[in-house]
Parts: sequence; structure tokens; C-alpha cells
Amino acid sequence: MVFMDTKHIQLAHGGGGQLTAELIEQVVLPTLGADVSAQDPQALTDAAYLALPEGAAGGRLALTTDSYVVQPLEFPGADIGKLAVCGTVNDLAVSGAVPLGMTLALVLEEGLEIEVLRRMLQSAAKAAKAAGVRVVTGDTKVVERGGVAGMIINTAGVGVVSPRAKLGFAGIRTGDRIVLSGALGEHGLAVMCQRKGLAMRAELASDCASLNALCRDLIDALGESVRFMRDPTRGGLAATVVDVAQSSRHDVELDEPAIPVNRTARAASEMLGLDLLTVANEGKLVAIMASEVADQAVAIMRKHEIASRAAVVGTIGQKNSDPLVELITDIGGRRVVQMPYGEELPRIC
Amino acid sequence: MVFMDTKHIQLAHGGGGQLTAELIEQVVLPTLGADVSAQDPQALTDAAYLALPEGAAGGRLALTTDSYVVQPLEFPGADIGKLAVCGTVNDLAVSGAVPLGMTLALVLEEGLEIEVLRRMLQSAAKAAKAAGVRVVTGDTKVVERGGVAGMIINTAGVGVVSPRAKLGFAGIRTGDRIVLSGALGEHGLAVMCQRKGLAMRAELASDCASLNALCRDLIDALGESVRFMRDPTRGGLAATVVDVAQSSRHDVELDEPAIPVNRTARAASEMLGLDLLTVANEGKLVAIMASEVADQAVAIMRKHEIASRAAVVGTIGQKNSDPLVELITDIGGRRVVQMPYGEELPRIC
Repeated sequence: MVFMDTKHIQLAHGGGGQLTAELIEQVVLPTLGADVSAQDPQALTDAAYLALPEGAAGGRLALTTDSYVVQPLEFPGADIGKLAVCGTVNDLAVSGAVPLGMTLALVLEEGLEIEVLRRMLQSAAKAAKAAGVRVVTGDTKVVERGGVAGMIINTAGVGVVSPRAKLGFAGIRTGDRIVLSGALGEHGLAVMCQRKGLAMRAELASDCASLNALCRDLIDALGESVRFMRDPTRGGLAATVVDVAQSSRHDVELDEPAIPVNRTARAASEMLGLDLLTVANEGKLVAIMASEVADQAVAIMRKHEIASRAAVVGTIGQKNSDPLVELITDIGGRRVVQMPYGEELPRIC
Repeated sequence: MVFMDTKHIQLAHGGGGQLTAELIEQVVLPTLGADVSAQDPQALTDAAYLALPEGAAGGRLALTTDSYVVQPLEFPGADIGKLAVCGTVNDLAVSGAVPLGMTLALVLEEGLEIEVLRRMLQSAAKAAKAAGVRVVTGDTKVVERGGVAGMIINTAGVGVVSPRAKLGFAGIRTGDRIVLSGALGEHGLAVMCQRKGLAMRAELASDCASLNALCRDLIDALGESVRFMRDPTRGGLAATVVDVAQSSRHDVELDEPAIPVNRTARAASEMLGLDLLTVANEGKLVAIMASEVADQAVAIMRKHEIASRAAVVGTIGQKNSDPLVELITDIGGRRVVQMPYGEELPRIC
């Protein structure tokens, strides 16, 4: 009789044998909410089957993936489980796609508390339910102690692209407006404060949220007047806007007084010496809109709680083969916004 | 002027800024063979777009994912790059799907030689080309030294399921035959020998290969007479066959003398104290076939170089609520085959 530690992940949980099956059937699937017994017997085989909706004929799919290495695993407002679901949902959403299904692959560290795994999966399940997306297949690997820090999650998602979506850098025109769905930097700062043990006077929580309802409403109402959408994650608003400028070959002007900022986030960014424009967000949307619908886009966004502070924050300027992004500052000065070089914030997502 | 180490991965390569863009544009995309300039401007945004083939209307998609944590990264016959592509191609293939596109997500260790990354990506690209599959999107994260061992790769794939494929445990019938495409255990043993510095007299190389052409030929020729397919990876043939027995509620008999084995693999497995039935394969197919087409399936398989030793190795027995898998041994004895409990071989794929 061998003593079995049933509270921690063991290397054998990743071996593909009985222990792997037990972990998946007793922890992963019930927590994710998959009702295996009710599913087709193919449910636990190598791939998940997804029925293509009727309207998908002749259409396009969107396919996306991200790995999540955030440290610590849990922080105010979210955790790696919620982040992994929202991140992939958002990449599909900003591509104009309605999610069909997503994958969730775990790389677990030997010795990880199974209770922590369960908590992360519960959080992932809750986020998936809120977004109306199903986790349909996955993978579980275990590496030796120290091989990863607790866990790494990878998610991938596939969706059907709305025929009304005509998104891409190519559609961006001089005079288009940049709409931002809310205040900047809360995800990156919440993770950093947690990591460094900084307590802020007021609560600072990650903005991690799914943007698919928001994006769908914009596309449904405004169609091809929505030129381009992106969620400004790593590199923040700065990286997104500089990429828009360089890829569309247009100058861009950002209007600093119009950019929503949360007071606690501003204080935290000053304390940590970070530029809010470059800090990661996980529940914000940058949308480039035809100017005549920009106010309408703001109104549509503001109906969503996560975008109650949506605002027009900038304008697409002239064509330029060497485009420039400028921030018109609060005091009327001009500052060039550059692509962040590297990253002051490793393991932020 | 800061000294820049251009030969090794830095944390800043994962920041989502300029260095990330350079790594992707100068190393990842050219190596994977993506001709960015020729692509639609959406190419580098959050998701890849895939056109749905005409015949897909009203059909099904297959979606799959796997993470690869193999150590060492390179071993005789393959490496983590090739493995990551073949693994996902194979999961789609055994599901009866023709791949539409796949993702490739990297988690890199700070300090990793960029030359090693390039080699792994070249290998992935070569495997994708050989399988006729496109890597259409990805992700790059960097973690601090010691955060992972060199790199972890996750791939996910989406494919359109052939309307001729009627695969699943539910279709398995008493009298069906089990066809195996070739010799067992070469992947797991090649990795273990490399890891432990064991040199075998004759070469022992991983069998890592893409099975999509093989699976497509079987489905095209034999349709619903192909009941079920799986690539016996972690847990080997034993795990696959026990899963078939338990999920279909049928006894299974394996015929040991019929199971192809490579002599060097047998020697290595004896030296390492491993049961060849439980060792991982990465280029082998287990197919459950209606008995009347089993010989035809073997003939179809043998036309493929990777399946030149295909053979009928077992039979599906009676319905049984507590099914038993038995191996009829070389000397005519009977041995019960069990689901491997854990895994003697961590980080094998």
C-alpha cells in the first residue's frame, strides 16, 4: 500500500494513464461544467466536434490562440483561469467572430495544490458561461517541480466571422475616430501591485472581461463603419495605436484629456514609474470608426457596464509612409507616442 | 548605447512591443514560411481568417489542442517543433477531419539561444509542409530563466470533418478488428535514451510523423467501416485499447505475435524496464475496422512508407459492462492489459 497524496498534482497525473483520466474526469470536467455522461461518446477523444451553423456556408472562420503565464496566478479582479478564457474570447470578438468553441490546455507543476487548479478552472468556467462560450476540448501535461510556476494555460478559439464584419487595417481612412471603451491600465497595475505587495488606498482590480457582446453589438449596428477593433493587452494603448498607424500608414492623434483614467490606476502607475499608455488591459476595446458613427459607437458601448466610460480618444490623420502617433497632452503640448521597446512588466498575462 | 545580446531570448521579447514585433517578423514568420508582405493586412492581427470550403455547409468542424513539454527539445528522429505539428495534425486526422489551419504558441525561456528557436520552427515548418497544413496564427511569451526548460509549445488545430467519417466508440461491434500501422514505442524510447545518454547499437529514432494522408485514405476508401481511430501517444497502445474497451463496453483481445516490434526498441525497453505496450508513439495509428475490410485497411496502410508494417493485431470481443483487455502472448498465454496507472516517462511529448 503506497501513500497517495490526493491533494497535490503528481507527475503521474500527466502520464496519459489512469491518474490522468481520474484528474480529468473528477476535477477538470466537472469543474468546467462539462456533462460528460450526457455527451456523445466522442466527447473524450482526440478532438471535439462542432456543428457548423447554417449561415456559415461560404463564410469565414477566425482562429486564435494565446498562452497565459501570469504571476501570481490570482490577483484582484481575476486570475489565470478567467484571463485565459477572456483573452481568447476577445481575440475572436475583435476579429468580428462569434465563438463556436474553445480549447483549454494545462501545463501543471508537480506539487500544485489540486484546490488551486480547481479554483482556476471554476473561474475559467464562470468566464466562459458569462461569455456564452463552450470549452470543448483540452490537454493536461505535468512537469517536474520548478518546471513551470504553478501552471501555464493555453487557450485557442474558433469562431464564425459575421458577414457584416469588414475589419482590417486596409479599411482605415483619414478622419476616422478612435473609440476606447474605458479606463486604462487596470489589469497590468493590479497584477504588479499584487506581485510587489503594494496596497493602494482604493481598490485596484484587473479589468479582465469578455468583449464579445460589445463587439457584436457594434458590428450588428454599424457594419463596415467599424474599420478595425483590438483589445489593447501587452504594450497597452500605445502598442495598439502605433500598430494601427504603421500598418495602415496613417498618422494618428490621441487626445489625452479624453482618455478615461481611474485615479487609483494613475497613482499606482506613478508609484511604479509606468506610463499608463503602455500598461496591459484585458477588458478594453479600441475601435476605429467612421467619423459619422463615432458618437453612436460610444452610445452603444456605454450600454454595457464594462464600457460605461467609453469615449472618442483620437483621430486618424493623413496618409504617411512614415507615420507618427502624437498625444495632445492635457496642457496642450504634443508628445510622440512610440511602440514600447520591450516590457517593464514580464508575466503580465 | 546599451549592449544588446542579439543571440538569446530576452524577457523584453515577450513584452508585446518593438522587440516582440522584431522577433516575430525576423525570426518566427520567415522561418515558418509565412510570406507576410504577400498576405492580407489582417495577417498579423489577433486572429487568422480561414475560408470555409464549399462542401463544409451543414457539416462539422473538429477542434483540438496539445501542449508539448518534451525534454530534451531535440532527439533522434524529431524535436519539439516537429512533434507539436504532427501531434495536432494527428488528432485532427484520427477524428476524420481535413485540417484547415493550426496555431502555434511559444512560451520561451529567457536566455534561450535564438538559433535553437529557429531550428525548432524550421522543423515545425517542414512538418507542416509535409502534412499540407498551414500555421496561421500564434503567440509568443517569454518567462524568466528557469521559468520553463527552454521552451513549451502549444498547438491547436481546426479541420472540416469528412462527411464519410462516422467515427466513435458507439460504432464499435463484436468481431471488429484492430489494425496497428507499425512498430511500437519508438518515440518514447528515443526520447528516453537521449535523455539518459544511452546509446543503442542500432539507431533508435522517434516515429514522429503526420498521419493525415493515411487516415484520409482509409476514410475515403472504407467510409463507415472505419469505426474508430486514435494515435497511441502517452500511455501507448495499452492506454488506447483499454480506453476503447471501457468506452465501448466490449472485451478486447490483442495478439502479441502479430504486434510489430523493432528489435532495437525491444532491447531499449528491456534495458529501461518499460513495457512496449505502454510507451508513447507519435506516428502510429490504431484503427478499429469492420472485420470484412480489415485486410483491405492493412493493404491501404502499407502503401504509406510510415505504415509499411501495418498489421491486424487484435479483435473486439463480446459486450461486457466490466470489459477486459487480454494479450494472447507469444507462447499462447493470456495476460490482462491494464490502463497504465501513472507514467514512468514524464515530459515525453
